[in-house]
Amino acid sequence: MLVNGLPSDSVSTLDRGLNYGDGVFRTLLIRQGRLPSWERHYLKLQQDCAALRLDCPAAETLLGDIASLISSSPDGVVKIVITRGVGQRGYAIQKGDAATRITSITPFPQLQAHYSTAGIRLHRCSLKLGHQPRLAGIKHLNRLENVLAATEYLEMGMPEGLLEDTDGLVISGTRSNLFVIRGRTLYTPDLSRCGVAGVQRERVMDWAKEQGVECKVTSIRFEELLQADEIFMVNSVFGLWPVAEVDGYKRNEHPISWRIQEWLNDENN
Amino acid sequence: MLVNGLPSDSVSTLDRGLNYGDGVFRTLLIRQGRLPSWERHYLKLQQDCAALRLDCPAAETLLGDIASLISSSPDGVVKIVITRGVGQRGYAIQKGDAATRITSITPFPQLQAHYSTAGIRLHRCSLKLGHQPRLAGIKHLNRLENVLAATEYLEMGMPEGLLEDTDGLVISGTRSNLFVIRGRTLYTPDLSRCGVAGVQRERVMDWAKEQGVECKVTSIRFEELLQADEIFMVNSVFGLWPVAEVDGYKRNEHPISWRIQEWLNDENN
Repeated sequence: MLVNGLPSDSVSTLDRGLNYGDGVFRTLLIRQGRLPSWERHYLKLQQDCAALRLDCPAAETLLGDIASLISSSPDGVVKIVITRGVGQRGYAIQKGDAATRITSITPFPQLQAHYSTAGIRLHRCSLKLGHQPRLAGIKHLNRLENVLAATEYLEMGMPEGLLEDTDGLVISGTRSNLFVIRGRTLYTPDLSRCGVAGVQRERVMDWAKEQGVECKVTSIRFEELLQADEIFMVNSVFGLWPVAEVDGYKRNEHPISWRIQEWLNDENN
Repeated sequence: MLVNGLPSDSVSTLDRGLNYGDGVFRTLLIRQGRLPSWERHYLKLQQDCAALRLDCPAAETLLGDIASLISSSPDGVVKIVITRGVGQRGYAIQKGDAATRITSITPFPQLQAHYSTAGIRLHRCSLKLGHQPRLAGIKHLNRLENVLAATEYLEMGMPEGLLEDTDGLVISGTRSNLFVIRGRTLYTPDLSRCGVAGVQRERVMDWAKEQGVECKVTSIRFEELLQADEIFMVNSVFGLWPVAEVDGYKRNEHPISWRIQEWLNDENN
């Protein structure tokens, strides 16, 4: 693990990332030393930093960090955290705050392989996401909603949870984005009021464009999920998991999800 | 500064406080080695920890930390941060997570003394607080809304900002609670959907009870603020600041606010 490029496993207790969750992060795969979809991840990091007025490190700086970490583990999960560093006292952003960047590689998590083929049971979380348009879409460090929601699915013995918002609209998983297939159309929730817009979500939209399949970003109610031909969840670590079951919805076959999964797993896409 | 009771100025990069804002905090005065309203602060810390299923350190443990910090500075601001510590990977709360406690004393901030008498100009923040009943009232470490809002008032050259919620209801300041006086009645916003319920807010309610003044916790629209005889903001560090001006509202005299201020400044209350 590196902090600002140097081997370290600690940050200042005054870091604004710790005190206010004032920062952003990325989680991405590293496979045999390669970083699939790096350009997209870096672009998203830049956008998230800009939204919070954080200084985003140069791509070369981050790639340098990762290169020096790779020697020990050429496969695993890279995490990049950018905080506003040790700032002045008080909530306000002040000129001269210097970002802290933390880069690490950890082993690929043990996932049950059959989730990718047979699909998962999804817990419908009782926690409902609040609306904050100024923070929506950003992968920032204020993640208590996810902490509470993830604790629910874990206690139910399921691998992921479905998040709705306070208006009853379906938004995402606790650590993944959601897609619905109905007929020849793909649907994914609008994330302008809450949720995180992930890189894997963009890649699914790329697939749709390449295949000439319509993909609508829209409002989806839970009742509409039940009408889906297929539902699937995506993130940059586990790829794509079809949804086999969620609160009354049940499917055994996921033909289109499997096709998209195969496409996503190809690093050249 | 102490981390888990030992002199340190750093925490693990794996701490859940840093990665998810998974923790709570308190900010309170220390005056000549005494901690005004300690029982209330500790009770609130216990409640906030319970709401997030965090292990709250024993009062004696925290008082022991503070006692060993006091020797160097018997006056200032004590900050206590409790995080869920270095947890397992992923958002979910897992059994066995051991809390990290960070205690520190910093000098009392330089406040412009006339704010307490002449009152302050309050910036009406464009950021509107989102609703999350599961986190409302808790002084947790997910404070990006406050960061964005505080940056607004600082850039406007004012000492505090007024926060409304996405429904247009007045909620609080960015680091303080709000009260309105109209006739013989005190009003303070309902914090069941957003905002932080501070200890100084409770003390104002105590004053009202002691004086036989009615204090209503209710919904307050901005237009209703304009009808106020007096408005004031409170927190545990600056005490009470009357509001002299906010977006069309102007008052030069704050007779009841001054009486309450005097009462709050008396440590025996």
